[in-house]
Amino acid sequence: MGALNADEERILFANDAFYAAFASGDVEAMDEVWAWEVPVVCIHPGATPIHDRAEIMRSWDHILSDPGVSDMKMHSPRVIAYDEFAFVTCYETLGGGVLIALNGFILENGTWRMISHQAGPCPDAPDEDDADDDEVGPSLH
Amino acid sequence: MGALNADEERILFANDAFYAAFASGDVEAMDEVWAWEVPVVCIHPGATPIHDRAEIMRSWDHILSDPGVSDMKMHSPRVIAYDEFAFVTCYETLGGGVLIALNGFILENGTWRMISHQAGPCPDAPDEDDADDDEVGPSLH
Repeated sequence: MGALNADEERILFANDAFYAAFASGDVEAMDEVWAWEVPVVCIHPGATPIHDRAEIMRSWDHILSDPGVSDMKMHSPRVIAYDEFAFVTCYETLGGGVLIALNGFILENGTWRMISHQAGPCPDAPDEDDADDDEVGPSLH
Repeated sequence: MGALNADEERILFANDAFYAAFASGDVEAMDEVWAWEVPVVCIHPGATPIHDRAEIMRSWDHILSDPGVSDMKMHSPRVIAYDEFAFVTCYETLGGGVLIALNGFILENGTWRMISHQAGPCPDAPDEDDADDDEVGPSLH
């Protein structure tokens, strides 16, 4: 990936903040990551979508109470930026499994905040050492 | 879900067009659905993300060549609208399995076009008869 512009760096920072909250089991920090003034949606692996912000936070409260979350590692984030909206694709490794995540962010009062999170199984994740490669994955298998 | 406004109806129409292209195996119609002027991303179930538009279309060409796609059924779409951007969450049934999809759309030159598609396994999908219910699913399991 080439040099990042300022917005891309701020978007990656917001994505990092999400995973820092995740790995530290910090529910308050997780709460700070998500947008307040617009709709949000969260789709945990193998689960139905949660559209209610308070319910999303209750789901994180449940997930982050597991001490195993400290093993969460995120790698190979890639920003897809629009005007006041962005996606980040990245890989999550936890408990020996690998997930691919698509995280949505919006610029809310000058701060990039999460509006969507969806993660699902991804057997073909690239090696973590490839994090700096331009292309993170090949194609459909 | 309550009454939809005009944009929400147009967003659902774009989502319907995606699934109509899918179920009819129509690669040209699929190509029409996706945005042309902005970045796009597609994450097929169990696969790594595809960021290149032409590569995304090649993946659909491959998927849609399977006659089984005609059994694809989408149900319970729900719009999450921002200004010139929107998500639709919906369920996909195909080959006896159920997937949950999060589809992103952007208003490009007056037309809502797809910018993201991610689908993953969803064992707890609601019954199709519940399509008109306000809440499509409970919470994390």
